[in-house]
Amino acid sequence: MTATDAVAPAVAARLLADAIPYIREFAGRTVVVKYGGNAMGDDETARRFASDIVLMRLVGIDVVVVHGGGPQIDHYLDQLGIESERIDGLRVTDEQTMDIVRMTLTGKVNPELVAAINVHGRYAVGLSGADARMLVVEPLDPRLGFVGEIVSVDPHVIQGILDAGEVPVIAGIGVDDAGRAYNINADTAAAAIAAALGAAKLVYLTNVAGLYRDFPDESSLVSEISIHDARKLLASGAVGTGMIPKVESCIQALEAGVERAHIVDGRRDHVLLLEFFTREGIGTMITGPAA
Amino acid sequence: MTATDAVAPAVAARLLADAIPYIREFAGRTVVVKYGGNAMGDDETARRFASDIVLMRLVGIDVVVVHGGGPQIDHYLDQLGIESERIDGLRVTDEQTMDIVRMTLTGKVNPELVAAINVHGRYAVGLSGADARMLVVEPLDPRLGFVGEIVSVDPHVIQGILDAGEVPVIAGIGVDDAGRAYNINADTAAAAIAAALGAAKLVYLTNVAGLYRDFPDESSLVSEISIHDARKLLASGAVGTGMIPKVESCIQALEAGVERAHIVDGRRDHVLLLEFFTREGIGTMITGPAA
Amino acid sequence: MTATDAVAPAVAARLLADAIPYIREFAGRTVVVKYGGNAMGDDETARRFASDIVLMRLVGIDVVVVHGGGPQIDHYLDQLGIESERIDGLRVTDEQTMDIVRMTLTGKVNPELVAAINVHGRYAVGLSGADARMLVVEPLDPRLGFVGEIVSVDPHVIQGILDAGEVPVIAGIGVDDAGRAYNINADTAAAAIAAALGAAKLVYLTNVAGLYRDFPDESSLVSEISIHDARKLLASGAVGTGMIPKVESCIQALEAGVERAHIVDGRRDHVLLLEFFTREGIGTMITGPAA
Amino acid sequence: MTATDAVAPAVAARLLADAIPYIREFAGRTVVVKYGGNAMGDDETARRFASDIVLMRLVGIDVVVVHGGGPQIDHYLDQLGIESERIDGLRVTDEQTMDIVRMTLTGKVNPELVAAINVHGRYAVGLSGADARMLVVEPLDPRLGFVGEIVSVDPHVIQGILDAGEVPVIAGIGVDDAGRAYNINADTAAAAIAAALGAAKLVYLTNVAGLYRDFPDESSLVSEISIHDARKLLASGAVGTGMIPKVESCIQALEAGVERAHIVDGRRDHVLLLEFFTREGIGTMITGPAA
Amino acid sequence: MTATDAVAPAVAARLLADAIPYIREFAGRTVVVKYGGNAMGDDETARRFASDIVLMRLVGIDVVVVHGGGPQIDHYLDQLGIESERIDGLRVTDEQTMDIVRMTLTGKVNPELVAAINVHGRYAVGLSGADARMLVVEPLDPRLGFVGEIVSVDPHVIQGILDAGEVPVIAGIGVDDAGRAYNINADTAAAAIAAALGAAKLVYLTNVAGLYRDFPDESSLVSEISIHDARKLLASGAVGTGMIPKVESCIQALEAGVERAHIVDGRRDHVLLLEFFTREGIGTMITGPAA
Amino acid sequence: MTATDAVAPAVAARLLADAIPYIREFAGRTVVVKYGGNAMGDDETARRFASDIVLMRLVGIDVVVVHGGGPQIDHYLDQLGIESERIDGLRVTDEQTMDIVRMTLTGKVNPELVAAINVHGRYAVGLSGADARMLVVEPLDPRLGFVGEIVSVDPHVIQGILDAGEVPVIAGIGVDDAGRAYNINADTAAAAIAAALGAAKLVYLTNVAGLYRDFPDESSLVSEISIHDARKLLASGAVGTGMIPKVESCIQALEAGVERAHIVDGRRDHVLLLEFFTREGIGTMITGPAA
Repeated sequence: MTATDAVAPAVAARLLADAIPYIREFAGRTVVVKYGGNAMGDDETARRFASDIVLMRLVGIDVVVVHGGGPQIDHYLDQLGIESERIDGLRVTDEQTMDIVRMTLTGKVNPELVAAINVHGRYAVGLSGADARMLVVEPLDPRLGFVGEIVSVDPHVIQGILDAGEVPVIAGIGVDDAGRAYNINADTAAAAIAAALGAAKLVYLTNVAGLYRDFPDESSLVSEISIHDARKLLASGAVGTGMIPKVESCIQALEAGVERAHIVDGRRDHVLLLEFFTREGIGTMITGPAA
Repeated sequence: MTATDAVAPAVAARLLADAIPYIREFAGRTVVVKYGGNAMGDDETARRFASDIVLMRLVGIDVVVVHGGGPQIDHYLDQLGIESERIDGLRVTDEQTMDIVRMTLTGKVNPELVAAINVHGRYAVGLSGADARMLVVEPLDPRLGFVGEIVSVDPHVIQGILDAGEVPVIAGIGVDDAGRAYNINADTAAAAIAAALGAAKLVYLTNVAGLYRDFPDESSLVSEISIHDARKLLASGAVGTGMIPKVESCIQALEAGVERAHIVDGRRDHVLLLEFFTREGIGTMITGPAA
Repeated sequence: MTATDAVAPAVAARLLADAIPYIREFAGRTVVVKYGGNAMGDDETARRFASDIVLMRLVGIDVVVVHGGGPQIDHYLDQLGIESERIDGLRVTDEQTMDIVRMTLTGKVNPELVAAINVHGRYAVGLSGADARMLVVEPLDPRLGFVGEIVSVDPHVIQGILDAGEVPVIAGIGVDDAGRAYNINADTAAAAIAAALGAAKLVYLTNVAGLYRDFPDESSLVSEISIHDARKLLASGAVGTGMIPKVESCIQALEAGVERAHIVDGRRDHVLLLEFFTREGIGTMITGPAA
Repeated sequence: MTATDAVAPAVAARLLADAIPYIREFAGRTVVVKYGGNAMGDDETARRFASDIVLMRLVGIDVVVVHGGGPQIDHYLDQLGIESERIDGLRVTDEQTMDIVRMTLTGKVNPELVAAINVHGRYAVGLSGADARMLVVEPLDPRLGFVGEIVSVDPHVIQGILDAGEVPVIAGIGVDDAGRAYNINADTAAAAIAAALGAAKLVYLTNVAGLYRDFPDESSLVSEISIHDARKLLASGAVGTGMIPKVESCIQALEAGVERAHIVDGRRDHVLLLEFFTREGIGTMITGPAA
Repeated sequence: MTATDAVAPAVAARLLADAIPYIREFAGRTVVVKYGGNAMGDDETARRFASDIVLMRLVGIDVVVVHGGGPQIDHYLDQLGIESERIDGLRVTDEQTMDIVRMTLTGKVNPELVAAINVHGRYAVGLSGADARMLVVEPLDPRLGFVGEIVSVDPHVIQGILDAGEVPVIAGIGVDDAGRAYNINADTAAAAIAAALGAAKLVYLTNVAGLYRDFPDESSLVSEISIHDARKLLASGAVGTGMIPKVESCIQALEAGVERAHIVDGRRDHVLLLEFFTREGIGTMITGPAA
Repeated sequence: MTATDAVAPAVAARLLADAIPYIREFAGRTVVVKYGGNAMGDDETARRFASDIVLMRLVGIDVVVVHGGGPQIDHYLDQLGIESERIDGLRVTDEQTMDIVRMTLTGKVNPELVAAINVHGRYAVGLSGADARMLVVEPLDPRLGFVGEIVSVDPHVIQGILDAGEVPVIAGIGVDDAGRAYNINADTAAAAIAAALGAAKLVYLTNVAGLYRDFPDESSLVSEISIHDARKLLASGAVGTGMIPKVESCIQALEAGVERAHIVDGRRDHVLLLEFFTREGIGTMITGPAA
């Protein structure tokens, strides 16, 4: 049973009409959505995420999906009995591990996302940062092996797919000058891609409600914060560990011209539609100087 | 208060998601909507009509509005004390009367429709069939004066405006080879324009619920009928007088390749959204061989 | 009998050849012509104006016509017995009056100009400043009602029609943020449109011979004047009342990059052809810094 | 003194206006003009020819000039003391002779035509049938050496120059599969090019008044003839020797879809303007099935 | 040491010049290369294959790579202890097996090919038949599970990447109407893609020298054969088992308009360059009616 | 016998593969090659030059050929018994002499180059600086007559031919504002064209090995020099007379943004292929600030 069955069609029609100002605001603009491994819950959540992305595309938003897949990588490494050392919390990634990382991201997580979206039609095209050397990296630290830091983004393949009215779904993998694959932080990749595309918005789907002024005090959830105050909050040490790279990525994207960055709870149903097309302000919005 | 205020945002979001298959069906296709003088009710109805048109545009439908304005013309002729003779129900239109017809359609009805739509942004562009000689006519009957029958349609100005992502709003006025303006039937004009544009759908907004098998018996409302059966119904004499030109126009458009024609009640709130984006089948749908 | 009948075809051919340097000068450039209510004389003058516009189009000039219609508005207000108060010479424009202004400009003057041009083919497309919110205004003075001052021009619809090889004919009506129509000064509208289009020339067709240094002394007609001297002449108080808004509009357009502005007598036969394609310098030319 | 000086500017303006229907007829269409060696008279005639071509270009005609240069070739062969044998009236063309033919056509006649046109601006671009292998030939008769018969035309370079708003001026030289240059009949070349471009008109400028039913009886000049009757006239033997290839070329072009072919006297002043832009019908017009 | 080091640069230069006619033949045309799991030998072979593809791209060939990965799939199934049943030689593919198939093809084989090509620059973009629902399949046999038969190809994403001057590398995976992934025969996929793109050539890189009239008699290698004779050879039962699907795929592609199909030994160094750019005819060429 | 016959096809294939990095470097970039009268040796050299140009075109270089023809001009002047005075080494060029210059360059040298290139297909299009007034000049010195100095370059016709994938071959002739032809230095013309096109490279084919630090001491051949040092070398007086205009032209081109200029020996076989596609560094390379 669809939701529409629960209300009179006349109500549904009026609700659609109410979405006009929200749709107008982003028509023809680019939005980058980071879909995280942790935010990927059950199949039903994935189905709703996919339909949200399709609706955003249908109302004229140039939407780009970037994803990582930490938990899935852990699962396969486990299954194959490969153990990883960690240095400062980062996984030491040798060639064999990188192979599993790549197989998981481009061979499992990415095609599943593409398939979920394409249930609705010819929309999603799967890519990784290695395609046409989209995400060029340098090694972050020689001790870490194939862990890369993004040094440049060439967004022309992404743009070509957007221009054809489709949805690029990008696995967070980078490539060095010799063409070798690297593990990269997908949060950072999403921010770098948003900056390179001149996106209007960057949205992080996470498994928390947003940014807290005083984590984990739930009443301290920040609904809107300027880039200036976000920097101060980071400096204060109040931001939870898992949230730090997201906030740093938001700041980088905003500094590079993205107008707004959002951290929202990806486990909520249709959270993207709520954020984009209703009066409901959800999660945390960080506003940059270009907003 | 918007409709959304009446339901939880979460419900609104789910309703939007439910519209995906309907939106996909018409994205990138052309739809011609005839907005009749009689269907133009109070200001609120006009506002809802305008927002429906904007939403159709926003979700990627190339929407064209064609209108007449019989009641408004009567009003101004009255006010100026100009009396019209009629032959077989058609108004004898001398030069002075034609002047009032044109002033009413292109100077009053058309800009009001344009204004109602443009409350939402830079969407509507007003035109008449005289612009770039879009609708070329011949005199229907020498006794009727400036009453024209369409002999050709040049849709390139309409198409240019659609290609720019805007909404052409077209007053039903024709022009002869010498450039003189003629009064034409707006129902016929809508069908001719739909045919020339290769539209997927032609929708008549009227002030009745649809086509009746046995007018005015309300239980005889036809919800779907083939072009073949519609021709038989016409021949049977059962179609009400006011409905005859609409049904004939539908048949002509369907024969010229339009896939579906609809006759719906323009007085219902958001009737276009109901028809296009919900499960609710309303009014009468006539299907052609191209459907 | 055409003019050509009066001379040998060989002379006609040589005259055409003589026009080459004049045609070359403006091929591919944009020219805005303000056609005023007062300059609109008898039908014969209108026919000649229309054929001049068509010839300009045929030789590759992107020509835009802007018009007002003061006398015609007065006529209809009179006929309907509506009286207007005036403050500082400007008509107080309530909703009813604005309705008549709009009906007259977009329902009468505009389609007649379009029809006169389209006698020659598929050239003219009628528009008003309300189409796609082309001319956005603010109220000039709360006491005056719907009298607007232009705050921005979006010329993309005009440009689209020019790019299609057609002639936009624009009624001088503006629109506020809520989509309401306003009466605006057509001289100012023409200048604002010329500036927004980066026009090479702006030509005012009036019912006087041009600008006088010492109005109404006919021997003081100015044939060429710089923007600097035009400003001084305005400051000196020597410019006639009716001419002041035209001269001010010229100065604004020239300051915004238009190269030359002309004030010529629209009652002269083929005055535009004389001005553009013969050695005859007519009326007054004001040259800006971009000339 | 220009012609315009001899008449009042007002008369000149009216004459320009009279040209509108003629200009409209050919705007955007392609016309091929064969400018013959014999039609090239004094410098003054060349100057007028050049200005006619420029005016045609300025009013939107896609005009192509094709030329030969028989008399000029004779002059240089003479000057260098090279004697030519003739078989059936055709010059036996050995390598040395072909060298002079090419030097004369592409090194002398072509650049002089280009220069005459470019006095008016950046219009003419000189080409020969050897450029991008535009005119591919086979040897006509082994005894004749480098005398070619056209077997195919690739008009894309010509079309590119027309699309850029310029005037291709083409020397009548062909090229075989090995890239060797051949002498070809420029009348035939003009017809083949007109056919390949889908030209509306093909005009031969010659040094006679047109086609005669009974050459050289001047009263038998044909002003208009169908392709059917032209074939009969050719078969009757009444066509003068020099005129035969022109009439045959006209017939070939008309059969290939060119609408009208004209044979006119290139020595008359502004003969192209007379033909294209005045009521004066001159020379002979042959009409094909596509007219 | 490069090969060039072994010969004088002057010889190298002359060899490049000798390649001109071969380069000309395929410039601007589309070629599909099937790179098989068995043909993928050591890293050095892969490096040479990649550089051949890049050279083909650089000289203007629109080159598409299609690949399978049978041996690699076997390796991972083995490693994970997943056993497959076979029916008539085809692997029964349940959901778990399909997951490994997809991980291997899109997560391992495909990115390695992309990486090998991108050593030379921004060329390769990895895709699978699931992207934008490029390869739509139906289940081949319900007993086989996720083994699909191609029912339609939508090549627009491939074409877009070719138009951008890049090299699509496509994993042989299909998708049904519900978006589920299927295992497909990569030989068939290559043929279907070649047909959909209107390719000039389809090349199979295998691990045999070509097609044998009397396998495994080496002297019976066929260097050229018509589609007609290839059909007869298939019917005769002389074609080796592994070669049957390749020959059938060739026939299907040729029937659909591909001009030539080649079966060559992918283990030879620079086999594509030999085939495309030297006089050396290698392997087996099958010519269709369009050749 | 081709060079490839002399080596195994496998070697040829490997040599092609070795050219990849060289081809990549210039793909899509513009290169101007000056082909000098003196560098034009026997037919075999011309054939090789032509095939080099075709190969450069085939691998995606936008290649432009500029040529003079001093020796050929001398030959024809001699043959016609026309004597030229010289002032400061420059030929006094009266109208008759200019006629021979133009006939030689555009009627003899240019079509022979075009023909040599077009042996390979539809590649070369012959032009001169008079076409569409590409090279506008002023008289260099009134005593020299028609000897011009370039004052502006309009490269749009060249660019149009490059964009169509063809090779413009340009005779070094200029044109003044009145459309008269002038003799110009082809070295300077090549540099001016390279600058106007924003070329990556400018190559002079001469009949010496390159630039010498101490001419004619062969051991003093300079293989690479900066623009700074080239200026000093010029000032030192060590540069041979014939080389001075080439070096000056190189410096001008480099100052205008060309990245590298080369002076190489045009008599060497396939010198362009050696220079562009092998490791062999030949002649002299001058590097500018943009390199």
